[in-house]
Amino acid sequence: MDWKNEMQTRIQEVEAALRTYIPKQETFPPVIFEAMGYSLFAGGKRLRPIMVLAACEAVGGKKEDAMPFACALEMIHTYSLIHDDLPAMDNDDYRRGRLTSHKVYGEDMAILTGDGLLHHAMQIMAQACYDNPSKQTTGAMLAIAKGAGIYGMLTGQVVDIYFEGKTLEKEILDFIHVHKTSAMIRGALEAGACVGGAHADVVEKFGLAGEKIGVAFQILDDILDVTSTMEELGKPIHSDEKNEKTTYVTLYGIERSREIAAKLSQEAVDILESMGENCKFLCELTKDLLQRTY
Amino acid sequence: MDWKNEMQTRIQEVEAALRTYIPKQETFPPVIFEAMGYSLFAGGKRLRPIMVLAACEAVGGKKEDAMPFACALEMIHTYSLIHDDLPAMDNDDYRRGRLTSHKVYGEDMAILTGDGLLHHAMQIMAQACYDNPSKQTTGAMLAIAKGAGIYGMLTGQVVDIYFEGKTLEKEILDFIHVHKTSAMIRGALEAGACVGGAHADVVEKFGLAGEKIGVAFQILDDILDVTSTMEELGKPIHSDEKNEKTTYVTLYGIERSREIAAKLSQEAVDILESMGENCKFLCELTKDLLQRTY
Repeated sequence: MDWKNEMQTRIQEVEAALRTYIPKQETFPPVIFEAMGYSLFAGGKRLRPIMVLAACEAVGGKKEDAMPFACALEMIHTYSLIHDDLPAMDNDDYRRGRLTSHKVYGEDMAILTGDGLLHHAMQIMAQACYDNPSKQTTGAMLAIAKGAGIYGMLTGQVVDIYFEGKTLEKEILDFIHVHKTSAMIRGALEAGACVGGAHADVVEKFGLAGEKIGVAFQILDDILDVTSTMEELGKPIHSDEKNEKTTYVTLYGIERSREIAAKLSQEAVDILESMGENCKFLCELTKDLLQRTY
Repeated sequence: MDWKNEMQTRIQEVEAALRTYIPKQETFPPVIFEAMGYSLFAGGKRLRPIMVLAACEAVGGKKEDAMPFACALEMIHTYSLIHDDLPAMDNDDYRRGRLTSHKVYGEDMAILTGDGLLHHAMQIMAQACYDNPSKQTTGAMLAIAKGAGIYGMLTGQVVDIYFEGKTLEKEILDFIHVHKTSAMIRGALEAGACVGGAHADVVEKFGLAGEKIGVAFQILDDILDVTSTMEELGKPIHSDEKNEKTTYVTLYGIERSREIAAKLSQEAVDILESMGENCKFLCELTKDLLQRTY
């Protein structure tokens, strides 16, 4: 199977599982469920849930045990985008080539839709832990909660907004990257390895690889904001320039930024390869992320 | 010990525990932690966490096992108030006699502060489940997640906003009450009983009592909005009239509403009394809630 088909298959697996988790419209009004679906099924790359599943399989676990955590993580990722796009935050009208949640459903419903996805992620993980209470399941939930929470993604977003419009030192930019983007990718790989039954030191290695992948991913994002087109990205380009944001590109230029991303990516691959043949897919995925144009 | 002292002691227990959970300001910027504390330590009645602890003790469990869930529930309650008060939602300037979060920290930080409290509640519960993975801990987390989530409190808020400015039928008003207010009180009593080790049928009885307490509580709230003063309530009165909201008071008048609340409250007491002497505190609390003027 070639890479593109492989990824497509995995994306479809995640999409199918997500649909089982997005509740039927039993309660009224349907608007909240419709709005959750609108943002959740907007053609995302499903990178984070695919990483949860791949890490679980890499350590010999069963994919179905990891699926609730994979879907919860994607819901948390989606909620964070909905709230990031709000008028009081980044005030973005487009995301993945479609109008953002608040442009379609209004600001009040967009806030509640984001809240709803975070609530539902918590409920799905709590249910999975209740169905099978163990260090594996509860550890996976904890890894995701930490990655997303006030020492993870959330704080990255706070710091990002806090320093808006100011020129940043490299240390603060790295803090933002490690928290806003990396923490959730770290959480994804840790959660997958944990629910798959890996020992703590192996879980930590997956986490470290995830952190490096996350920073490389964010640097690439900043490069694409300069070099890509709105059609390819599905959102306005040059948004960092417009918002006068400090990025790796403004600090180091495009070529040097590419080199830094490539180095981090290679370090992640080295860690993953050191854990054996089973991490092959994750290594390929890491390399592929470096080549992406969207 | 008289009732007032008893409640004061329990409130202080919860406050002390909440302070251990609100993180030290290790990361920068401190604003998110400060903002979380601003809303969390605003003199709330701590009704919900006290219920979690009391239900746990009533079934023979240890209070310290219930404390993480009690604190998490209070954080979720607080987050919901912060988001409810936002300009895009109810647009309220005062809560508990103080300026609301967005008036102090700005709209963007208020959204993130609410998100942060929900994230932190998830993390605290996940940690408690990981430290002791069992049906008791994970069941408590699940009860709270369900009470707060898209079939609970969140949907109540969505429906409330959806029908804003419209005259409601009793069925829809009851739906809003049962979800927006009762679901979390149900979740509090269920979580406490569950982590305390109660059997499923006992947990369900606590839940049913919680639902009745919650609706009675909401009817009282609507009455107080008409009969109380801003000094006593800590927020503007006559807000329902201003917002043309349908309430029990507009449907049935004050006296009939009081009777309905009293009946629900008595039904909850009957359920709790049927489970024995250990529920005495919860019975007293239920009766006391009916007498409150704030």
